[in-house]
Amino acid sequence: MNCEETCVLLQSWDDLLILCHASPDGDTLGSAAALVRGLRAMGKRASFACGDPVPAKYAYLFEGLEDLSDAPAHIVSVDVADAKLLGDLEAPYGQRVELAIDHHGTHVPFSPRCWNEPDSAATCELIYQLLKAMGAAITPDIARCLFTGIITDTGCFRYSNVTPRTHRIAAELMELGAPADELARRLFETKSRAQAEAERMVLETMEIFCDGKAAMVQVPARIRQETGAQDSDLEGVASFPRQVEGVVLGVTVKEKADGEIHASVRANPPADAAALCGQFGGGGHTGAAGCSFPDDTMEGAARKLKAACAAYLEALGL
Amino acid sequence: MNCEETCVLLQSWDDLLILCHASPDGDTLGSAAALVRGLRAMGKRASFACGDPVPAKYAYLFEGLEDLSDAPAHIVSVDVADAKLLGDLEAPYGQRVELAIDHHGTHVPFSPRCWNEPDSAATCELIYQLLKAMGAAITPDIARCLFTGIITDTGCFRYSNVTPRTHRIAAELMELGAPADELARRLFETKSRAQAEAERMVLETMEIFCDGKAAMVQVPARIRQETGAQDSDLEGVASFPRQVEGVVLGVTVKEKADGEIHASVRANPPADAAALCGQFGGGGHTGAAGCSFPDDTMEGAARKLKAACAAYLEALGL
Repeated sequence: MNCEETCVLLQSWDDLLILCHASPDGDTLGSAAALVRGLRAMGKRASFACGDPVPAKYAYLFEGLEDLSDAPAHIVSVDVADAKLLGDLEAPYGQRVELAIDHHGTHVPFSPRCWNEPDSAATCELIYQLLKAMGAAITPDIARCLFTGIITDTGCFRYSNVTPRTHRIAAELMELGAPADELARRLFETKSRAQAEAERMVLETMEIFCDGKAAMVQVPARIRQETGAQDSDLEGVASFPRQVEGVVLGVTVKEKADGEIHASVRANPPADAAALCGQFGGGGHTGAAGCSFPDDTMEGAARKLKAACAAYLEALGL
Repeated sequence: MNCEETCVLLQSWDDLLILCHASPDGDTLGSAAALVRGLRAMGKRASFACGDPVPAKYAYLFEGLEDLSDAPAHIVSVDVADAKLLGDLEAPYGQRVELAIDHHGTHVPFSPRCWNEPDSAATCELIYQLLKAMGAAITPDIARCLFTGIITDTGCFRYSNVTPRTHRIAAELMELGAPADELARRLFETKSRAQAEAERMVLETMEIFCDGKAAMVQVPARIRQETGAQDSDLEGVASFPRQVEGVVLGVTVKEKADGEIHASVRANPPADAAALCGQFGGGGHTGAAGCSFPDDTMEGAARKLKAACAAYLEALGL
């Protein structure tokens, strides 16, 4: 599917539920909030759902959007690369998604219709084009949601997924009322004291290996316990290991609140984060990917990841 | 002066020296390197000079640009807000600058002609328009210089000085060959081990005061001595204090290599960094400004700045 076909399809539907992925980020939430707002302004019944609670820092996306999510006629997913990433919503809705709108190169088809553009930096880029094609008015509220998704998925215009189109859409969204500097400050330049303290503790766990080409930090549960930092406070630490000069594979091993061990990998070319995470059943993008270790300890997952980094870098000839 | 008038003037000159400000940043260096490259491609004799050495991380801007700076006929400054910011070049050239191209709201006139646009996020935005107006080809090398100035003066599109035009110019520069992700990674997402260690030590000096509305970090000379970090490695720490939630005035007090005490102030609205620094003879922008304490110790400067923050916040009713 492309933008026009998606537009025609959505125009024919009047009662929709928009699904986000679990462990929601700014792009899946911004896409859902913008789409629900746009559809409602066109007189349609639309709501959204997510398998996990909306983090407090993204609550503004849904301000004034009361929930209507009972018995929707049509179900659309946004930024969901795989049915299993729906989390708790996979069981009730996984088989019922009629349309998936996504930008992941690793998208595993799970819906009869799919509009997937891996060249887009964020699903919000697609939602912006879709709303324009549908003739929806892009209000300041909608512009704010879309700008949120674009900056959170690009590290505020720093990652390799940014294209000239990303910047042009950003310019248009600013003119449509997106408070760019406020969003950048809130999402990238502001941390609670707990977060600042937790980040300092994470930095102390940094290990550099493979002749300086790989680095790892660990986020044991005690760091959250001792500082009061939330999971969402620790999203940024995944970028720390790769920031060290010469590192092409940066790994973050995190003990989640439910005890499960999860790894985030960031890669610089020619390394591919999705290829490394794929070895452990995970996926994502070239520059950023993740995987889980449901039956492992932190130490076990860290050991396996270090071995995988060494083998992968050797296979790459690095 | 405006862009067209500046264009006509530069077209009439054939032998130019472009001056940067001392303690050079990416915008003054990127502006000079782009302008020199553009003027030379038009067959003119052009070179650049700076009162301080070019930091190693910006050396790529001048790759392949051999120096020609003897007895220039015309002198132009870029991104220089005040003649005294020329540093060691003020004595030989301060009175001889014929044209200043700048974007500082605090610009103190020192040249007979001046094109100053405080609404531009970076002087590089002006140089881009100027080179286009002059009919110069924007080569990938020039695009790289201009993109450097734009991202370094905007915190890579995070600060309040970013406008829709900034994003549109960024889109065009990417299409002209600026390696956006490589520059963002190199200038914002990469740190040496010395820098990472120094930043951790700076974070340990954080003090929060004025009921959580102001914060300060200190960078004594021993941090550079113990870690081997350079002055340019420590530019980023100026943003640390303001990152703490609730802080509107973030102050960094730094003991420079020559022993002089310098303060950098970052402000969130309604606070104005330039207003605070103006009390100590400094200046800059609303969001970011600086001042020096030539006859003070770290402790003395810190004490004066804390008192000034308290009085300023009270005057603002915060």
